[in-house]
Amino acid sequence: MMLKRLNHIAIALNNLDDGINIYKGIFGASISDRVALPEHGVTTIFVKLKNTNIELLEPLGKNSPISNFLIKNPSGGIHHLCYEVNDINKSIEKLKRKGYTVLGSGIPRKGAHGKPVIFLHPKQFIGTLIELEEVK
Amino acid sequence: MMLKRLNHIAIALNNLDDGINIYKGIFGASISDRVALPEHGVTTIFVKLKNTNIELLEPLGKNSPISNFLIKNPSGGIHHLCYEVNDINKSIEKLKRKGYTVLGSGIPRKGAHGKPVIFLHPKQFIGTLIELEEVK
Repeated sequence: MMLKRLNHIAIALNNLDDGINIYKGIFGASISDRVALPEHGVTTIFVKLKNTNIELLEPLGKNSPISNFLIKNPSGGIHHLCYEVNDINKSIEKLKRKGYTVLGSGIPRKGAHGKPVIFLHPKQFIGTLIELEEVK
Repeated sequence: MMLKRLNHIAIALNNLDDGINIYKGIFGASISDRVALPEHGVTTIFVKLKNTNIELLEPLGKNSPISNFLIKNPSGGIHHLCYEVNDINKSIEKLKRKGYTVLGSGIPRKGAHGKPVIFLHPKQFIGTLIELEEVK
């Protein structure tokens, strides 16, 4: 099986405080510190659930990759799902062979956890933007 | 903490076969049999990941609760997140006290797993339709 764990569900929103109010304030979950990732154009917070994490994403700087999403979804919304894979290059090879599109240059880049990641096109995956992250 | 595990991510789509092709065919995940739930207006399949499940939802019958969602999202998309709670009535009480809206009658009803569930309004929860399911 190519997929291992669901690493996280990413929810984009205009203001991280709204996410903190809900997930920490109402639901009582523990959350990480804010981490600014200028090279990804987002500031993130992780919400720790028992079996997985929610990644809250707020735009950082101009041309944030989540800005258009937030224009379409001003109250915020689920932005992508991140699944762990054993070998990201093998996964990309298999997907390309089967006719699927890997976004960007097609070469994995370093994700928010410092591990190689790649994104798949939502139109080919039931409307879901999927991030694959290599976790050995 | 009110929330326990992420029970599942529900993805709505017009044809379950498309979901089977991706999650079983490409990703190699194991999937459940189809279960028709006429009282919920959906046919479901569960995709088993290591730490959680994906619930694929196809409309069943007229007036399926996911029909409008699929008109807006013809390729399909993430429909809701289901979090487990210990005591659904206590959770509803707390949410109402804090000014949040519980959808429907406000009284939990039997979900796809035969356990009490309730839905929360996406506008109040960062654009995410949230299902709470009581799992003791």
